[in-house]
Amino acid sequence: MSVQQTTRPLGTEPPLPGRRLEITEPFQLDSGVDLAPFTIAYQTYGRLNADRSNAVLVCHALTGDQYVVDPHPLTGQPGWWSKLAGPGKVLDTDRYFLICANVLGGCMGTSGPKDVNPATGETWGLSFPVITIGDMVRAQKLLIDHLGIETLFCVIGGSMGGMQVLQWAASFPERVFAAVPIASTARHSAQNIAFHEVGRQAIMADPEWCAGAYLESDRRPARGLAVARMAAHITYLSERALHRKFGRNLQNRQAVTYGFDADFQVESYLRHQGITFVDRFDANSYLYITRACDYFDLAAEHGGILANAFRGSKTRFCIISFTSDWLYPTSENRAVVHALNAAAANVSFVEIETDKGHDAFLLEEPEFFATLRGFLAGCAEHRGLAFA
Amino acid sequence: MSVQQTTRPLGTEPPLPGRRLEITEPFQLDSGVDLAPFTIAYQTYGRLNADRSNAVLVCHALTGDQYVVDPHPLTGQPGWWSKLAGPGKVLDTDRYFLICANVLGGCMGTSGPKDVNPATGETWGLSFPVITIGDMVRAQKLLIDHLGIETLFCVIGGSMGGMQVLQWAASFPERVFAAVPIASTARHSAQNIAFHEVGRQAIMADPEWCAGAYLESDRRPARGLAVARMAAHITYLSERALHRKFGRNLQNRQAVTYGFDADFQVESYLRHQGITFVDRFDANSYLYITRACDYFDLAAEHGGILANAFRGSKTRFCIISFTSDWLYPTSENRAVVHALNAAAANVSFVEIETDKGHDAFLLEEPEFFATLRGFLAGCAEHRGLAFA
Repeated sequence: MSVQQTTRPLGTEPPLPGRRLEITEPFQLDSGVDLAPFTIAYQTYGRLNADRSNAVLVCHALTGDQYVVDPHPLTGQPGWWSKLAGPGKVLDTDRYFLICANVLGGCMGTSGPKDVNPATGETWGLSFPVITIGDMVRAQKLLIDHLGIETLFCVIGGSMGGMQVLQWAASFPERVFAAVPIASTARHSAQNIAFHEVGRQAIMADPEWCAGAYLESDRRPARGLAVARMAAHITYLSERALHRKFGRNLQNRQAVTYGFDADFQVESYLRHQGITFVDRFDANSYLYITRACDYFDLAAEHGGILANAFRGSKTRFCIISFTSDWLYPTSENRAVVHALNAAAANVSFVEIETDKGHDAFLLEEPEFFATLRGFLAGCAEHRGLAFA
Repeated sequence: MSVQQTTRPLGTEPPLPGRRLEITEPFQLDSGVDLAPFTIAYQTYGRLNADRSNAVLVCHALTGDQYVVDPHPLTGQPGWWSKLAGPGKVLDTDRYFLICANVLGGCMGTSGPKDVNPATGETWGLSFPVITIGDMVRAQKLLIDHLGIETLFCVIGGSMGGMQVLQWAASFPERVFAAVPIASTARHSAQNIAFHEVGRQAIMADPEWCAGAYLESDRRPARGLAVARMAAHITYLSERALHRKFGRNLQNRQAVTYGFDADFQVESYLRHQGITFVDRFDANSYLYITRACDYFDLAAEHGGILANAFRGSKTRFCIISFTSDWLYPTSENRAVVHALNAAAANVSFVEIETDKGHDAFLLEEPEFFATLRGFLAGCAEHRGLAFA
């Protein structure tokens, strides 16, 4: 009747393909903690040109990962941005060198709570230090330095990925030629924090969470994590999209059952979202990454004035929002535009008309793709990127 | 770190004050099940006049109860509509005879899953039949018949209470002189169902739920119910109200703790909402009553045409919505108005400007109160209710 435990036995995850960078120098986090050594797992697509001027850093969202183009190694699903990125696509891997790293605190190869703390030989769990969006970005900068890239042609990402884009532009303006934060925000609102807190409480309420030490006892808070995912998933869709996709349609039945089965398609869909998520995501990583989002407040780092984060910036910005996105609505994106205007930055802003809600940034949206294609072409010209 | 178990020991709830009606005749539910015997717990305020023409039936919302004016017997909090109802107030108990019954399936005295099934001597739990908004209303009609009231002067309620108002007007139009559904809807949307399903899954994911049989083993799924309440509570408030009340303010600290405590006031507030709720509400009742809402689709009972629910009605309707209510937004309330217009019914419609979200119907909203006062005064005049 309720969400069932995941089907994959524990410890049977396949090895994660891709590249690794081991960081051994102490890395100071915003919390003051030194993290070292740690690993950054990343993927690249396309080729870095001789000038090292065609690199595009893709920043992934809350539950995303470095598998932008190639299939997800655990689920086999196509890369999360494979509609947008690949040979001949908007993020054209025949032209650009795409880089995407799993975020610090994640569960897809970059060090996070599910990994072993080299200092103790034990799983980090809740002893992993709490990280911030700023920490994620500074870890990515170590990777970019390692790859010998002086200036990124573009830093791009949606949702939490967009927060990283803004942080990159604010922290390392000289390293970012163009910045594209999509469906994002410069600070987490009270409602954003509230939804994240519900998800965290759902995980912590699961006795299988074991105060964070579930891996040591070979358990997993699958039910709590599934509930967290279900609650979050509603915020990724618009009311209208839910109505269009599901309405009050019944699931494989002609009439309601007067029971608590998934009578409605929307219930069945949500349960599926919860169940499949737990097969690919670590519950403690969910706690850490949601926390990083909640802590994000770019203006607070600059005396409470967001424009100060971008003063003197030469970066070309393209801010994109979606009309039906109520998680990071146009108003939040527009606040970033206003700050950029106040800082006399080079900024374009496009609000895309769609009923698909926040998730639109992951979907085939012709106007969104066309906007991005045009912006990148203009930037490439200014950057002197000549394509055959 | 997570929501703690309730503090009141099990089985120590004080007896619930108020009136009871025992129904012994078989009562056929929409599911086809006969429920008998069962109890209706209700409260009345004010005096029924000699003509029996001044009765106002108040229908409560999802987690409401019959304690409209007097303090809640478990929490000691003021009656949930005591701002609106009482001597000299908008719902003036010096003029009107107020009646409010706990809904069927509830946990405040009317028969529900936490009660003993007289046929078996055992707690109902999940063997309690699934009920509908229609069942709730027909049970209330038994009470109104018992009280010897031919025509209710007014049936009024917000949220799920408003659904009952619409069902009353559709099922028993000749018994309803005036009807006031507030911040409500004629059918539960896909998003409404989705949020309810998250709540139900949170409860069912709690091992203390024991497949619904927790009372027999002296347990309670307090954590799951608290998570359900937290998720629901966000939907009762607007993004703007959350920002105004909490913003990103920290809770009793100067800086974030880089941990998972309730750093932000909004987190602390939500946790409090969850913890206090479990002291006054039964988890299985939450499953049953949310299910009744999800099943609600008044048009479906009338060939898919909502106007048909109201054809020939002489009832005077006043539909009230709130601008910042995103749970049952103005568009849903307006759909009811359009159906009433199509049925040539007598209808007023007012959208109240407020940032307080869905919960506005429970709060001091001067324009809302003035609208209601005016509407009731006009109806009283037409009804020939002469007040000293």
